[in-house]
Amino acid sequence: MVGASAKRHRQRRRSLAAKGRSAPKPIGQALYRLVADLYPLCRSITGSGVRETLSMLRRLIELKIHQVPSGTEVFDWTVPKEWNIRDAYIRDGSGKKIVDFKKSNLHIVGYSAQVHTKLSLAELKKHLFTSPEHPDWIPYRTSYYEENWGFCLSHRQLSELRDGEYEVCIDASMDAGFLSYGECYLEGELKDEILVSCHICHPSLANDNLSGIAVAAFLAKALSALSLRFSYRFLFVPGTIGPITWLCFNEERLSRIRAGLVLACLGDSGGFTYKKSRQADADIDRAVVKVLQETGEPFEVIDFSPYGYDERQFCSPAFNLPVGCLMRTPHGRFPEYHTSADNLSFVRPERLADSFITCLAVLLLLENNKRFINLKPKCEPQLGKRGLYAAIGGGSAGKSEQLALLWVLNMSDGRNSLLDIAGRSGLPFSMIRSAAQKLGAYGLLEESR
Amino acid sequence: MVGASAKRHRQRRRSLAAKGRSAPKPIGQALYRLVADLYPLCRSITGSGVRETLSMLRRLIELKIHQVPSGTEVFDWTVPKEWNIRDAYIRDGSGKKIVDFKKSNLHIVGYSAQVHTKLSLAELKKHLFTSPEHPDWIPYRTSYYEENWGFCLSHRQLSELRDGEYEVCIDASMDAGFLSYGECYLEGELKDEILVSCHICHPSLANDNLSGIAVAAFLAKALSALSLRFSYRFLFVPGTIGPITWLCFNEERLSRIRAGLVLACLGDSGGFTYKKSRQADADIDRAVVKVLQETGEPFEVIDFSPYGYDERQFCSPAFNLPVGCLMRTPHGRFPEYHTSADNLSFVRPERLADSFITCLAVLLLLENNKRFINLKPKCEPQLGKRGLYAAIGGGSAGKSEQLALLWVLNMSDGRNSLLDIAGRSGLPFSMIRSAAQKLGAYGLLEESR
Amino acid sequence: MVGASAKRHRQRRRSLAAKGRSAPKPIGQALYRLVADLYPLCRSITGSGVRETLSMLRRLIELKIHQVPSGTEVFDWTVPKEWNIRDAYIRDGSGKKIVDFKKSNLHIVGYSAQVHTKLSLAELKKHLFTSPEHPDWIPYRTSYYEENWGFCLSHRQLSELRDGEYEVCIDASMDAGFLSYGECYLEGELKDEILVSCHICHPSLANDNLSGIAVAAFLAKALSALSLRFSYRFLFVPGTIGPITWLCFNEERLSRIRAGLVLACLGDSGGFTYKKSRQADADIDRAVVKVLQETGEPFEVIDFSPYGYDERQFCSPAFNLPVGCLMRTPHGRFPEYHTSADNLSFVRPERLADSFITCLAVLLLLENNKRFINLKPKCEPQLGKRGLYAAIGGGSAGKSEQLALLWVLNMSDGRNSLLDIAGRSGLPFSMIRSAAQKLGAYGLLEESR
Repeated sequence: MVGASAKRHRQRRRSLAAKGRSAPKPIGQALYRLVADLYPLCRSITGSGVRETLSMLRRLIELKIHQVPSGTEVFDWTVPKEWNIRDAYIRDGSGKKIVDFKKSNLHIVGYSAQVHTKLSLAELKKHLFTSPEHPDWIPYRTSYYEENWGFCLSHRQLSELRDGEYEVCIDASMDAGFLSYGECYLEGELKDEILVSCHICHPSLANDNLSGIAVAAFLAKALSALSLRFSYRFLFVPGTIGPITWLCFNEERLSRIRAGLVLACLGDSGGFTYKKSRQADADIDRAVVKVLQETGEPFEVIDFSPYGYDERQFCSPAFNLPVGCLMRTPHGRFPEYHTSADNLSFVRPERLADSFITCLAVLLLLENNKRFINLKPKCEPQLGKRGLYAAIGGGSAGKSEQLALLWVLNMSDGRNSLLDIAGRSGLPFSMIRSAAQKLGAYGLLEESR
Repeated sequence: MVGASAKRHRQRRRSLAAKGRSAPKPIGQALYRLVADLYPLCRSITGSGVRETLSMLRRLIELKIHQVPSGTEVFDWTVPKEWNIRDAYIRDGSGKKIVDFKKSNLHIVGYSAQVHTKLSLAELKKHLFTSPEHPDWIPYRTSYYEENWGFCLSHRQLSELRDGEYEVCIDASMDAGFLSYGECYLEGELKDEILVSCHICHPSLANDNLSGIAVAAFLAKALSALSLRFSYRFLFVPGTIGPITWLCFNEERLSRIRAGLVLACLGDSGGFTYKKSRQADADIDRAVVKVLQETGEPFEVIDFSPYGYDERQFCSPAFNLPVGCLMRTPHGRFPEYHTSADNLSFVRPERLADSFITCLAVLLLLENNKRFINLKPKCEPQLGKRGLYAAIGGGSAGKSEQLALLWVLNMSDGRNSLLDIAGRSGLPFSMIRSAAQKLGAYGLLEESR
Repeated sequence: MVGASAKRHRQRRRSLAAKGRSAPKPIGQALYRLVADLYPLCRSITGSGVRETLSMLRRLIELKIHQVPSGTEVFDWTVPKEWNIRDAYIRDGSGKKIVDFKKSNLHIVGYSAQVHTKLSLAELKKHLFTSPEHPDWIPYRTSYYEENWGFCLSHRQLSELRDGEYEVCIDASMDAGFLSYGECYLEGELKDEILVSCHICHPSLANDNLSGIAVAAFLAKALSALSLRFSYRFLFVPGTIGPITWLCFNEERLSRIRAGLVLACLGDSGGFTYKKSRQADADIDRAVVKVLQETGEPFEVIDFSPYGYDERQFCSPAFNLPVGCLMRTPHGRFPEYHTSADNLSFVRPERLADSFITCLAVLLLLENNKRFINLKPKCEPQLGKRGLYAAIGGGSAGKSEQLALLWVLNMSDGRNSLLDIAGRSGLPFSMIRSAAQKLGAYGLLEESR
């Protein structure tokens, strides 16, 4: 924001704050309602919970549901057996159900094997998981790739268990079946694609990642109503195995991906955190930063690291796609993360709405981030005779709109995109874009292809 | 200034402070006298005021005065009709001249059309311009490219005007004529040119830009007495249309321009502000920064933007010349800007002298900024046997002069100029230059062409 | 250290502090003993003191001693005559020896010519050197390349000298002889070399540079016990003329030098200062910085300048070798520098040990700084099925060891070395290296040649 005067900066904050205030209530409610509807389902990386989730999304957007058979080889991985769970509980010596899957699907370690047996407290404890730092919360645990079974419960409850015999029952199946994922493709004028991906494998966890699912679904819905330049692909995939499977079957498409975003943890009350793509200076990285700067709110940008969400796969070295990850508070940095406290009261409609608006701004920025050629590049063209410049000269400060015209003319040498110009000028992207439109209308600018 | 010890830094400040104190009084007085002599003339982008200004400069330097006919097409622009004004006033109902062009040429909106009529206060007010934030000052306004007329006056006076009938008279002409500008070319050993440009279109405004005109004229005078390596071209041009016209008729020369400076606002009491060229890292950019660093005084460096003085034209995308702009307080950042308060008491002889010395230092740095090849590049040559190194070793600190020799030898691999070496070593350019001269005299260095 | 959490940072400091505490006492004592043994010898750039020094080093390591005849042309220099001194003193009028070379070899200006005469105090004073700021210390002075003679003494003693006649005697010879230097070459798997150099020309000065000699000698001894990838060359050379001579006779080898370190001033109580190579971003530069960061202690990195130790020659423009200089307090920045106060109590065994360990860490980092190719670069390979990843998922933070695996996999695209990966991840080099070893053992990684 070199060169941005404090005054202009304040103005921008005001205008965005204003935009924030008028953030459409209905979209926040709709996003929240979708989160709430999806919350009770017991999702995992496979199984009926995932399919029910995809079915619900299908009511909102055109979603193609892919079914990939267990045992399919995908790069170094194998699509696992499908896991389905019907019931699970622990009864104490008196026969009382002290842990009940029906009360919270977090009680069961994901991919637990079928079991029905009695055992001592000492034996049972080997299969119990708690979060001692948060004694009232049930943690979320999985064991996808090693056969095991287990229960999660509050640490307080664990500490109150008395010696004796316990009955454990897990009525689950692990059979050849399918890995299910959803794909929504919106065809644009260009074959070049923008990718949006979110994970759909977590059970009753609201921020991680029903928030991401809801934002992605409503983005797809919003874009589907528009005439688009880029094509857009929305992926609703189980974490890790999902993108690996998709990448394995879509290698020939990858060169078309111009930008991508992994969406996660978008409903909490924190500011935005953007994790850059492995490329670090891709259009997506600069677009997100520009949009976040324009919000006037504090935000954080972190470098790529190979730990996190599915950007890990998109940014693996053979692909190195320009895919970043937008979050509010990142995974592992909020205490409620992967516990029963990441529930429906942890996410807020207005935060979901703000996340939706921000993501949409990023996508629309990319959509409009063209590169132009100044057709009168020798000196400035005479804007005044075209009515584009104040008639009375001598005033002390150029108006931002006039500055935007000058910036677009000066930088449009075919190397700089509108995003580059917005970045260097410190002016809002929308103002740069509308300057380019005006100049185009007057025949002073032409798109560079 | 990496590597510059605090001690050396203090020494430099002292020596420059000393230089400052001994800044030749006569040059400051001469600069100020020129500003004062030019102050009363009513300049605009064309007309007799401009020609009188150029005539006065011609007494000082060899100036070629170009006359470009009205109607000449220059890129996207057309040379306007020539504007000349003889008189202008407003009389109130009692016949009293309440606004009189003869008292201040700022009273008239530049390029006002001929008018002689009577009108009500309400009608008159549509043609009156004031500066409410500074109620005692007359603002400066123009309407070059849209036919109009108007008067500027103090806001206090405006607020005291009573209803009634007013007589306005503007005795001005707008006829086919000429755009006049001055060019002073100093031929050097090389055809490569250094450009210095200033605008000459403002009426009685001292800092913006009689200061620039005076500094440029005395620079031309000073250089004309020297044997020069580069050729130098000084342009005294009306803003915007002037450089556009010059650029249009000199396109084939532009590839020879190695560096350039637009000079403006050089007489006020502020520190220097340097606005970088669009290239951002051209020799001129680094030369100015180095010279300003060596002054030991605070200064500011700002990025290029396409708003400001005539660097806008020189740095338009098709030309992208290495031309920066040196100012003290930039346009629009001092309250007196474009008002009657930018008068002869706003600029000071000693500030003009300091601006002159600083600009001269920049030009001489460029003049001497050669690139050399170390002819003994394998290890250090033995400076001691040539008397270039202290005979008694073991003392704790190398003297700066010896360090300068080592820096020049080490960096002279054909890629680094003396300016590069001065920058990396943190030593004064003059010291690096004299080290190169010494090494050259001993056959250790040869100029790289 | 982007991305390093405060917690991990603290852990690293602890572990290194622990390592520091357990720094092997014996190595510190051995280093100090070598410094003490070498201290009394009167070294200069040639002569018996240098040869005795090399003979003592030969008891420790396999050292080839080169003898280059006086008069040999080496680039711009000529190997000087050999200087040997047997005795020197000043007697006052009463016949009392008031300055005696046998008490301190600093008393004699290095390379003083033979003289035996009587002269007045005024005449004598032209040949006396003192350090007025430190009136009790004897300064160190030389006059290698201009024939002269002189004595150094404390300023206090000088100020107490009374008028009268003095007898001066310097029993020294300057004859055709040899320049002597030592070279220890350790052959590794590769012909690519790592160079370690130190100067051996200073008389009784402990930090500058017996500390460097001792650290270099013990590094050579330590590496000679290992099976090495790179070849290593240790040079024990008189300053300036030594490396110039070596470079002159070894030009054809220089392209093999992959990294180099000049070692000096490594026994004082200051933190480390690393002076970068002229290349500024060579492997050696990044390796030293990484090792110093991992110590958790404050350190300073300074840019290359052509003044200092023998990196001046290695980094001369025709060679521009990737050679930096590691010191604790740099030359000229400690008051004891080049005086009798740089004695055996100024250097400490534990500082020498810490310097040795740090240098060894740098060399071992380079030795292990390979570049790998991820053999499963499409998405992450499934670490879980190989037992390389925690079986129970859902915990909030990845363990550093797991992160290291992911970093190595993600960055091993053939462009990044382990040092690059350690730098970008903020993880300790040793952890990155062991991750690479593990991944290699599982067939996931292969060395890139």
